[in-house]
Amino acid sequence: MGNPYYECPLPVTIPPAKPFLESIKLGIKETLFPDDPFRQFKNQPASRKFILGMQYFVPILEWAPRYTFEFFKADLIAGITIASLAVPQGISYASLASLPPIIGLYSSFVPPLVYAMLGSSKDLAVGTVAVASLLISSMLGKEVNPNENARLYVQLALTATFFAGVFQAALGLLRLGFIVDFLSHATIVGFMGGAATVVCLQQLKGILGLVRFTHGTDLVSVLRSVFSQTHQSKRKPCFFWINAMAPMMSVIVGSVLVYLTNAEKYGVQVEGVAVGRSFAMFKNYHIDGNKEMIAFGMMNIAGSCVSCYLTTGPFSRTAVNFNAGCKTAGSNIVMAAAVMVTLLFLTPLFHYTPIVVLSSIIIAAMLGLIDYEAAIGLWKVDKCDFIVCVSAYIGVVFGSVEIGLVIAVTISLLRMLLSVARPRTFLLGNIPNSMIFRSIDQYPIANNIPGVLILQIDAPVYFANANYLRERWIYEEDEKLKSTGGSSLQYVILDLSAVGSTDTSGISMFKEVKKNIDRRGLKLVLANPRSEVIKKLVKSKFIESIGQEWIYLTVGEAVAACNFMLHASKSNNQVADEFDAHNNA
Amino acid sequence: MGNPYYECPLPVTIPPAKPFLESIKLGIKETLFPDDPFRQFKNQPASRKFILGMQYFVPILEWAPRYTFEFFKADLIAGITIASLAVPQGISYASLASLPPIIGLYSSFVPPLVYAMLGSSKDLAVGTVAVASLLISSMLGKEVNPNENARLYVQLALTATFFAGVFQAALGLLRLGFIVDFLSHATIVGFMGGAATVVCLQQLKGILGLVRFTHGTDLVSVLRSVFSQTHQSKRKPCFFWINAMAPMMSVIVGSVLVYLTNAEKYGVQVEGVAVGRSFAMFKNYHIDGNKEMIAFGMMNIAGSCVSCYLTTGPFSRTAVNFNAGCKTAGSNIVMAAAVMVTLLFLTPLFHYTPIVVLSSIIIAAMLGLIDYEAAIGLWKVDKCDFIVCVSAYIGVVFGSVEIGLVIAVTISLLRMLLSVARPRTFLLGNIPNSMIFRSIDQYPIANNIPGVLILQIDAPVYFANANYLRERWIYEEDEKLKSTGGSSLQYVILDLSAVGSTDTSGISMFKEVKKNIDRRGLKLVLANPRSEVIKKLVKSKFIESIGQEWIYLTVGEAVAACNFMLHASKSNNQVADEFDAHNNA
Repeated sequence: MGNPYYECPLPVTIPPAKPFLESIKLGIKETLFPDDPFRQFKNQPASRKFILGMQYFVPILEWAPRYTFEFFKADLIAGITIASLAVPQGISYASLASLPPIIGLYSSFVPPLVYAMLGSSKDLAVGTVAVASLLISSMLGKEVNPNENARLYVQLALTATFFAGVFQAALGLLRLGFIVDFLSHATIVGFMGGAATVVCLQQLKGILGLVRFTHGTDLVSVLRSVFSQTHQSKRKPCFFWINAMAPMMSVIVGSVLVYLTNAEKYGVQVEGVAVGRSFAMFKNYHIDGNKEMIAFGMMNIAGSCVSCYLTTGPFSRTAVNFNAGCKTAGSNIVMAAAVMVTLLFLTPLFHYTPIVVLSSIIIAAMLGLIDYEAAIGLWKVDKCDFIVCVSAYIGVVFGSVEIGLVIAVTISLLRMLLSVARPRTFLLGNIPNSMIFRSIDQYPIANNIPGVLILQIDAPVYFANANYLRERWIYEEDEKLKSTGGSSLQYVILDLSAVGSTDTSGISMFKEVKKNIDRRGLKLVLANPRSEVIKKLVKSKFIESIGQEWIYLTVGEAVAACNFMLHASKSNNQVADEFDAHNNA
Repeated sequence: MGNPYYECPLPVTIPPAKPFLESIKLGIKETLFPDDPFRQFKNQPASRKFILGMQYFVPILEWAPRYTFEFFKADLIAGITIASLAVPQGISYASLASLPPIIGLYSSFVPPLVYAMLGSSKDLAVGTVAVASLLISSMLGKEVNPNENARLYVQLALTATFFAGVFQAALGLLRLGFIVDFLSHATIVGFMGGAATVVCLQQLKGILGLVRFTHGTDLVSVLRSVFSQTHQSKRKPCFFWINAMAPMMSVIVGSVLVYLTNAEKYGVQVEGVAVGRSFAMFKNYHIDGNKEMIAFGMMNIAGSCVSCYLTTGPFSRTAVNFNAGCKTAGSNIVMAAAVMVTLLFLTPLFHYTPIVVLSSIIIAAMLGLIDYEAAIGLWKVDKCDFIVCVSAYIGVVFGSVEIGLVIAVTISLLRMLLSVARPRTFLLGNIPNSMIFRSIDQYPIANNIPGVLILQIDAPVYFANANYLRERWIYEEDEKLKSTGGSSLQYVILDLSAVGSTDTSGISMFKEVKKNIDRRGLKLVLANPRSEVIKKLVKSKFIESIGQEWIYLTVGEAVAACNFMLHASKSNNQVADEFDAHNNA
């Protein structure tokens, strides 16, 4: 039919089609190199490029020449501070991983040196972490009993570390670090809280002085283990409770102190790459997550060859490093040196460290990870995220660490897929005294336009939601036709502002929707299709079938054109007058 | 700081928070019952509800009382027409599934009767399909050799049919039919084309008169099988080629005829639910996919008990049924009766059906499924969908049917996840002589506003893209600051029109972006947050930290407010003048 009378102020632009290879190249660049890491290499001579490249892959080459005595003083203080954390934590976490304490100390010696050379964060302090230690003991413990076959167990742990390093380095080299983004905030809160709970439960062994203990990490096995042993001790109950009370008290008092001094109250964070990134933000410099992955991988590969087990950048230690005023990764070198001194001269002393002290250190560190405040925040802001969080927690505590992780990731992904599969559609109305159109649900003040149905969708149109949208739109039309008696409705406007992209299933859906609208004797009008969408609509000849003159830049213009046609076609001017009355601004 | 001078025409509405249970209920309803199947039951007396309920679950009760002689005449003709298809196809597809021909005929007898009672499509013709038959022989053939142990093989096929029926019915009852939506159009084109190619390759056995043949379905095994046997036949090459040529010619001629008469040219479709739905659209009635799933399930459960194997609603037969003018599911009853007559009186004849005829029937049906035109269309409209299609095809042809399906579904999902993880961000500019703001990429005519950076994002903000967006936005600011010399930029406007929803990871990201913007001495302004987003922003106290007066209904208003402040704070009015010059409409 066309619309010869109404002049559109600016037609919707159809961007020129890009050559296939160029758009593929752009797609790969955006997916794998969104941060454009090689930006600085552009327009540089070859020699400069080589130097920049070396500095890129080995950042110490970049900061070492500019290293000053001021920096050294700061790094020395920070390094000694974190070393004082590294020694007890190293020993405790090694015991959590069922490894000899000396391996925990080694792990605070070689990996920090590697990271100091390859890492790009200035604040990150390298070390072992409780959750990874727990994972090692719970997964390797199934294969080899660390008490019966200690040598094999240690070898297995070092092999696992080696392959973890290879995996990290490979992810970084292949620029696949973004996979980590698929762990949501809620998953991490639940998972870390669950892991911390499990770690604390494991400490019941040390605190209660139990001899035989389960290798399972779930709540049921641990409680059964605890109660069966307390039951066996019935013959000398007095001794058991005296044995148990003193260390328990020390743990409780210690934990309360730690809690009050807020030493661990930095909230829950993904350890590793995210830690470096958070602190980088404070000092306003940029961290390339994939490059950090490579540094972590190399650190674990090198570490595993010299009897170090899995290390990363723990949040708590990095926070201490940051607050102690570190300037460069040099603080890691200082820490390594301090740990070496400890290893050389103080090792004999650790032989006498009571297990209960180690347990206390672990519990104190763990309490900060049970971030119930974050969980309450999730409940307040997003119930669905809260459910994800609780599922992860329950999975870890009642199942195992792996089950918890799988449950949480699955729920997160399912939720995302569901929200893609079930986008919301909105009925738009005119905000009085304006040309603005907004959802009638959100703005009850908005008015329906007689004879025109305006639908909006708030997500990309994909195969996963194309069927749903078709049904939904047909349903909305039915309702509208019913409510108006089927006579006055003449135009259906689809507002595509929020449809960022589409695929061929989406295009088929649009075609079917158009057929359906045609069959009812209505006219389909499109408002504000985005460049990706309009390109595909043109290529699939959908625009031809609608007519280019029925595509408008804004909903307001589309409505104005519809009203113009209604006005022109109807003998009475009532409809157009009504609309003009709305828009007398 | 606030903005006391500029009056916003309408503040952004913050919808009242819904009670948790109500929003959960609404979420479940939208996910599982988007089509609101119980709509008609509302506000009805109990007795009426019972009748409606019976009619809902057994649709024959609804249409049988209104059945007229006119309907019967139409259904009779349609039924006999599809029976004439059902008999040869039933025998051919049974041989494809390595089952006795009689089972193929049984399958066109009982299942149509069950569907006629329970199904809600008026046009769907029930029967066996080639791809499912191929799947049965390729999967069960691995376990049991149909030639050596025919009895066990048939029992296995019927058991598989029974459990397929149980699975279908369960999916329907649990309202999980939407899982099928996750198969994209491109996947189906590639998968069906691949399956058709494999089926045709399998027919080389019948056409070339080969005795021993591979049980593998992949191209390599089949070609090896063909060439090894042709090689063995070298001693009597003349006879082999004479034997082979005649049937080959008949197949070629037959296929060309079929192609020219367009009998199969209905394009590629998912068989089953989607078929019924497509035809329902023509007659303007509605099909509930989940209810259809239950009907298919019951049909297969009942069928498997009386020696019928897997049936569904094939597209080609349904199209014939539709074109023959069927009025109700009664045409299926007529077809069943006609097949019964065939079974009773004509069975002895089928003993002499030459294999080559069966092969020809299968190949003729399959050629319509290799929809190369659709593949060309995919290439033109969406290269990524084309890659998905080709992967599915190659997976099926060179691997196996299962491998092809897994590859195609994985690629489709990965593509969707990637597009969620990597949304596009846009820089907006002012379209001259209007208050409209659009992407500068799409509308090169759009002008930058001095001192203001306007960013837009075209997808929901989730945990999967929160990290990426944060980096992206910070990068854009950097670029803008660099290009303007860092002095004049004062406001960053985020246009949230296309952000349909968000989660707690998204909210954290907004908070970090705000911190970063604050640190640079800039001011963050939001434009048009949608109801889901603003609710969560309010609950997480983000709106408080920005200030409610910095949230605007449109980008235009946000820019006007920023300009007003720039104007008020600067001694020279240059900036505001520039903007006024743009907007002198």
